[in-house]
Order: sequence, then C-alpha cells, then structure tokens
Amino acid sequence: MKTNMVKGLPEKTIERLSQYRRVLLGCLQQRKFNIYSHELGQLLHLNPVQVRRDIMLIGHTGTLRKGYDVKQLSDLIGEIIDSKKSQKVAVVGVGNLGRAIMSYFQGKRTKLVIAAAFDNDPSKVDRVIAGIRCYHIDDLEEVVKQEQITISIITVPPEHAVETAERLVMAGIKGILNYTPVALNVEPHAYLEEYDMITSIEKVAFYAKNR
Amino acid sequence: MKTNMVKGLPEKTIERLSQYRRVLLGCLQQRKFNIYSHELGQLLHLNPVQVRRDIMLIGHTGTLRKGYDVKQLSDLIGEIIDSKKSQKVAVVGVGNLGRAIMSYFQGKRTKLVIAAAFDNDPSKVDRVIAGIRCYHIDDLEEVVKQEQITISIITVPPEHAVETAERLVMAGIKGILNYTPVALNVEPHAYLEEYDMITSIEKVAFYAKNR
Repeated sequence: MKTNMVKGLPEKTIERLSQYRRVLLGCLQQRKFNIYSHELGQLLHLNPVQVRRDIMLIGHTGTLRKGYDVKQLSDLIGEIIDSKKSQKVAVVGVGNLGRAIMSYFQGKRTKLVIAAAFDNDPSKVDRVIAGIRCYHIDDLEEVVKQEQITISIITVPPEHAVETAERLVMAGIKGILNYTPVALNVEPHAYLEEYDMITSIEKVAFYAKNR
Repeated sequence: MKTNMVKGLPEKTIERLSQYRRVLLGCLQQRKFNIYSHELGQLLHLNPVQVRRDIMLIGHTGTLRKGYDVKQLSDLIGEIIDSKKSQKVAVVGVGNLGRAIMSYFQGKRTKLVIAAAFDNDPSKVDRVIAGIRCYHIDDLEEVVKQEQITISIITVPPEHAVETAERLVMAGIKGILNYTPVALNVEPHAYLEEYDMITSIEKVAFYAKNR
C-alpha cells in the first residue's frame, strides 16, 4: 500500500482499523479464520457498510462466500498502523490511572512499548512498577532523549498538565495522549489525542435518564 | 427547551455540550463571564462553526460584541444534560482504573454520584475507598435496586466483562460505560458507551510515526 494513501486516511478510519485488529486477533485466538463485514460490524456496533468502506480504503477485499481472511486483514492493518520498529512510550504521572495503563500494557503483543514512567513521589521513583522503571520527573528530558521515546501518555494531576506537555514537546515527543481534563495546545509539534472520562459518563447519564 | 428537541440531539453534540460546560465552569472560576465561539472552539480543538451550530441547536445565541454569556450557557447545558435529581453510578471492579475513576469523581460538583463500588477481593469488600463503600460482587443486584442506581462503569478484568454487563442489565441499569477491551451487547436494555485505551494510543502512535 502506498505511503501517501495511508497518510490520507481519515482519523476515524485509523481508530476503527485499530478496533478491527483487536477483534481479528481475538478471532485468531479462537481459530476463526474468516469473518464477514456484518460480523465485524456487529461486534463493534458499526454499520457493515462502514466496515466495508474502511477496509476498501486500505485496498483489501473479502469474498462473498467467505468474507475477509482474518490473518491477511490483521497483518495488513498492522502494516498500516504499526511502525516498522517498535515505538517507545512514556507514562507521566504514576497515580491510579497511570498504573492502570502500565498494567494494561503488560504482556500485550504490540509494537508499542512503555519504556519509562515518571513521577515526583519519592516512594515511586527508582522503583519498577508493573514492569516499568519509574524515574523522577526532573529527569524527563534526559530519559526521553536517551531512550528515544516518541510518545507520551499524560496522567498527572490537572494543575501540572500544561507544564508537562510543554516539557514533553521540548524533549522531542511526537504524540501525546492526554488523560487530564485540561485541554492542551501542542500543535504543530506533536499530535494530540485527549480523553476526559467525565464527558463519557455524562453522555451515558444523558441517554440513561431518557430511557 | 422542548423535550423532544433534546432527544433528537446528535450523540456527538451531547459529548461536545459536556465539554463546553467543562470549559465554561473553568471560565466562571476565573471570573470570565463572556466567551466567543472561536475561544470555546480553540480550547477544545473544534471549529467555531461547529461550536455555533451546537449551541444554536439548543436554542441559545450569543451577541456579536460579547459572545456567549458563560453563566447562562452553562446553566442551559446543565438543564439539558443533567437529570433533575442526581443519578447514581456504580463502579464494578476496584482495580487501578476503578480507583482512578472513584478518586476523579471525589469532590466534583456534578449531578452524578458514585453510590457504590463492587469487587470480589476480600481486602476491598466492606471498606470505604475514595469515599465510596465497596460491596461484594455477589450483592450487586440487591445494592443496585436498593440504592436505585441507574448507571454503571465496568472496570473488571476482561474475562468478567460479559457476565458483569448481563447482571447489571438484569438489575435494571439503564446506562453502561465499558472500559474493558471486550465489546458488549446490552442494547436495547441499556445505553452503551465503550472506550478502549489501546485504540487511542495506537492512533497517537500512527500519527507520531508520520511526523
């Protein structure tokens, strides 16, 4: 697949490709080797037309009789999403959420490796937590450069969010996933994705009250 | 605002209204009483046209000179999103992520109250964690009914996700926020929102590698 074709993929398609792969890897574990677009769609609450459109965008087609080849499609998505060599991630802020993320990554076969964690709490610094070495936040720039870390997940208290993002960008980080409720501004230096759980729960509450 | 008008609001608009309110409450704290659509948009990485369209949809307008009245708009969003009386939430699974959510909610002024947590770990059961009583998972149905809990956040290990969701629906839960990587199927009994952090981080990694 052509590089410029990949670069033009919509953000939402990238998200869904990641979700398709998660389902496809699950299929392989259960020794299911073919899947129809409507099955994929149902498992992810997506319209099958959407599924077919996304998969056509990456140049793959299934057959009418058997659907998609699970292994082929999963490999193709990997070629598009994953980097050729693994990408290193830093978790900044080792509170409950930081720990949850670090544990979640442990043992996952992925091209993304959490290479370092940072905190300012002396009881955490220089310890190995969920398999990951925790450094003092003062060493952020040095460790990021030394370890060639390109991605960071921010799970610090909200009052430290802006400063943390600035330091990460200055250290050369190219992508940030921000879990604090503070909206950050790191473009054009780094790609930014933000998630605030209050928004998700307020949305669920809105639809729950109208049932 | 008419109830049927509210019910027809797109899901993405509901999400953004929640985000607007978060920003507006921040403004009030800083004694900023007026805001322009482009300011709101910038803080949330949204197009100002989108902001104006959403706010027009809920029947509010600003003025050209002063923009929106922060207090009025924040109150109006509250009328739409919030329930008249507070809605009760249960957190099922008190691991790192469950704890992170419980701590995050502590002290937030919101119409959403975490009324109970559930786990099967004897060291957690019958204790108060982040201000919330933790019950044994066996008591799920009883407590949900007794406390009139209508919303649940699922943070159990993936292998327990499906069973947990089924029990919650049977107990009368109307909205579920699923943080496990297992896609659930609870429609039409409950509204479902799912979030998998692997998808977010894979998306960030994809854009980071192409920079």
